[in-house]
Amino acid sequence: MSPHLLSVDQLDLDRISTLFSLAQRMEPIARREKVCRVLEGAVLGNLFFEASTRTRVSFHTAFSRLGGSVCDTTGFTFSSMAKGETLTDTARVLAGYCDAIVMRHPDLGSVSEFASAINVPVINGGDGPGEHPSQALLDLYTIQKEFKRVGRPLEGAHILMTGDLKYGRTVHSLIKLLTLYPPLHITLVAPAGLEMPTYLLSLAEDRGHKIELRATLHENFEPIDVVYATRIQKERFTEEMVENFAGVTDEYRVNKAFLDQRCTPDTIVMHPLPRDSRPGANDLSPDLNQDPRLAIFRQTDNGIPVRMAIFADLMDISSDFDKHLAPVSWRVPAQYGVNDTTF
Amino acid sequence: MSPHLLSVDQLDLDRISTLFSLAQRMEPIARREKVCRVLEGAVLGNLFFEASTRTRVSFHTAFSRLGGSVCDTTGFTFSSMAKGETLTDTARVLAGYCDAIVMRHPDLGSVSEFASAINVPVINGGDGPGEHPSQALLDLYTIQKEFKRVGRPLEGAHILMTGDLKYGRTVHSLIKLLTLYPPLHITLVAPAGLEMPTYLLSLAEDRGHKIELRATLHENFEPIDVVYATRIQKERFTEEMVENFAGVTDEYRVNKAFLDQRCTPDTIVMHPLPRDSRPGANDLSPDLNQDPRLAIFRQTDNGIPVRMAIFADLMDISSDFDKHLAPVSWRVPAQYGVNDTTF
Amino acid sequence: MSPHLLSVDQLDLDRISTLFSLAQRMEPIARREKVCRVLEGAVLGNLFFEASTRTRVSFHTAFSRLGGSVCDTTGFTFSSMAKGETLTDTARVLAGYCDAIVMRHPDLGSVSEFASAINVPVINGGDGPGEHPSQALLDLYTIQKEFKRVGRPLEGAHILMTGDLKYGRTVHSLIKLLTLYPPLHITLVAPAGLEMPTYLLSLAEDRGHKIELRATLHENFEPIDVVYATRIQKERFTEEMVENFAGVTDEYRVNKAFLDQRCTPDTIVMHPLPRDSRPGANDLSPDLNQDPRLAIFRQTDNGIPVRMAIFADLMDISSDFDKHLAPVSWRVPAQYGVNDTTF
Repeated sequence: MSPHLLSVDQLDLDRISTLFSLAQRMEPIARREKVCRVLEGAVLGNLFFEASTRTRVSFHTAFSRLGGSVCDTTGFTFSSMAKGETLTDTARVLAGYCDAIVMRHPDLGSVSEFASAINVPVINGGDGPGEHPSQALLDLYTIQKEFKRVGRPLEGAHILMTGDLKYGRTVHSLIKLLTLYPPLHITLVAPAGLEMPTYLLSLAEDRGHKIELRATLHENFEPIDVVYATRIQKERFTEEMVENFAGVTDEYRVNKAFLDQRCTPDTIVMHPLPRDSRPGANDLSPDLNQDPRLAIFRQTDNGIPVRMAIFADLMDISSDFDKHLAPVSWRVPAQYGVNDTTF
Repeated sequence: MSPHLLSVDQLDLDRISTLFSLAQRMEPIARREKVCRVLEGAVLGNLFFEASTRTRVSFHTAFSRLGGSVCDTTGFTFSSMAKGETLTDTARVLAGYCDAIVMRHPDLGSVSEFASAINVPVINGGDGPGEHPSQALLDLYTIQKEFKRVGRPLEGAHILMTGDLKYGRTVHSLIKLLTLYPPLHITLVAPAGLEMPTYLLSLAEDRGHKIELRATLHENFEPIDVVYATRIQKERFTEEMVENFAGVTDEYRVNKAFLDQRCTPDTIVMHPLPRDSRPGANDLSPDLNQDPRLAIFRQTDNGIPVRMAIFADLMDISSDFDKHLAPVSWRVPAQYGVNDTTF
Repeated sequence: MSPHLLSVDQLDLDRISTLFSLAQRMEPIARREKVCRVLEGAVLGNLFFEASTRTRVSFHTAFSRLGGSVCDTTGFTFSSMAKGETLTDTARVLAGYCDAIVMRHPDLGSVSEFASAINVPVINGGDGPGEHPSQALLDLYTIQKEFKRVGRPLEGAHILMTGDLKYGRTVHSLIKLLTLYPPLHITLVAPAGLEMPTYLLSLAEDRGHKIELRATLHENFEPIDVVYATRIQKERFTEEMVENFAGVTDEYRVNKAFLDQRCTPDTIVMHPLPRDSRPGANDLSPDLNQDPRLAIFRQTDNGIPVRMAIFADLMDISSDFDKHLAPVSWRVPAQYGVNDTTF
């Protein structure tokens, strides 16, 4: 088995189940009910060749909450690489320093190339248009956890994805994972030119899922269980699209009106974040900020136990960490956010 | 009570007294006579949207010396914010990762806006022309500690502030805190155009303090107990001021000659740092570097116990941390600096 | 004795022997067989005014593996210094926060100037064309460790250095250390204009070493025990050199053909890294990547125990750290790199 986590293609139901069991065991630590020191003495190389504060801090925190130390590196150019060092040389040097490496890089395939030289676990934190497997895992984990809360099975659920389904890396990875499960009803709503790639549609259909394609959110839908919204980046638009979009951006904007019309009280709204809240943005509306169905921050919160589970799995600390637990010595607020819902 | 420390306006004598008692309990840890691990497992998000090495390292160290882990973020742009993410979205995401957040940001009010979304404690590390409450607290702590050393009461003390009293954020916050105490004699020496704002003069006078305004340091003064010098930034000058200042910059330059003429052997000289030591700088003179009255590094040293106290207070670890103390296992130099004085 | 490590000129055989004994005691921790927490509570200020990911991460890891916390600062300009703060003011402030400071700076002498103000240990992590003593120590440590593995004495060894011997800081420092030992045979191969400075040749000869100067690697050599290759930076070239070098760059390129012709199965090839692997680079060839004689990653691995030893020595924790050892709780791969050799 690969010592790395580079792609969701490495994952099957067994592996996901192992990871999510681990994530559940991590929940009390992630929620700061317990402190864990199992990785005391271990060092994470947290390498961000491309800026991503959220992802970097999330991995940093996950490793810290297991007791490890983190060495962050950020910035678009590494001095060594500017001098002609190969990714594999960099990897081997850092493998001598670190016990795990998270890497984000703007170039497709770069993280795999980096990882190919070493046995120290590498986690792909996003390689440009490529993969970002920990995001897909935390998305799936969120769906399962939210469903469990309301006692709904995953099988047969109606999941709607909207926004930029062509370039949106997160929806590609999530749909790959979802198709591993018993039949789902997946509705895809994207503007012309930004549709989900056909190879992913075929994959889903081959595995027995019901796929529905829609042109706008203004159409009729069967009741939706999960809305997964993504941002439409105007910089992706062709000239024709720019014209078509004048004045009609709310055709892909998930807001309170849409939820009240097409969803149930138990529907959840997800988003990979960041969301663009500027006026005129084609993105998830802030008018949902106090709606308990907005699950976007429960989703980011889940990044911590899921990333802890990935470390625990790749570094093989699963059987050991319970004996490294201790009580928390500071006051933890009952809710992190002022708008958080208590269920 | 607010879970955050955003402004000195939140502070009254009781709260300051609580914080300073905590700071005193932190002194042995800050001086590295003891090691403390009470915050083991906790994560600080140390967010600097604006560069400030001194302040960032000081908060980092304070949290580390309590046993916590720190995740630094530096740089003028956050990738998420460039994509239209609101400060409140960023805050809520980070509140799911971190147990406390220090934030410096160039925009007035930004830190309060950020903090408004979350219950995880936020400490304002400076919001442009706004507030930097931990600096005001360490300044006040320094005055009280130095006075205690020489057995002088705060009441009736003569405190002179000079330099840029209009834009200098630190003198505004310090004067607000000082006015909470029994009557003081405060002398303000600033060039025309850079005087202390009148609302602060009124505040001090309303609270019974004697306020004296002077045009230059070349005048006569009653013996001074504290000189608080700040830098005059030439970029603040009007054209008229530039002309007036030609050749007369030492009218606001605190140096050995001034101390020997107007001060006592127990006077202390403070400065928020950095000081500009380039020739021609309108700033505290390097000719005091070996004078024990120069308290600027004792002042920065005090930043550690004061910031530890702020964390201990906001995270409610005050009652608990003594049992997490251990001896220090490395050699600590008797004096950090080669010019430090032993009293 | 200076509390700092600023230059290899501070080192004699006794001090090196002390450091290398410490490094050997650090090996099980560096190899992640043991976890050490002796520096729990201590803070390292890791100051990189000039980018150097490898060196920064190496010091960071070394301090972390001793149990300490690390505060990194990177970037070409410090806000304070841009405002006219002296290096000595910065040093004294940071000495109040940190228990050890590593500093890299582009200006010759800057690290010594910084260190002159404080008693907290400062390690020179490279001051432009100046010194980088921890690199020289890990180079020497690597030679001794590799020789011990094959049972060869250092005395009489044949060490060849090639590449840019004029501007290459590492070869200067290494040759200074080597000359402290019983007579060696040192061959220097550099293009005209990039030869080793004569003061170093004199030093080596005065101390009884045999120095041989050669113009290219294409000549005959006695069997070589250590090849120390460095990069020839084209930006150093004069116009004349650019012309001379057209088509003859492999005259200074260490590759498999050279090793098979001039070396033994026990020869080791070292390099300070990064090496330039781009086509046409005047640098150590990637055709050696699977050759066990390529010791460049064993060399970087040695940076950890050597830098741990430097901290242990300067912070005087040598006698104490054994009792802070604990078992490792995660899986450590048998080999860090996929091409690593097991001897």
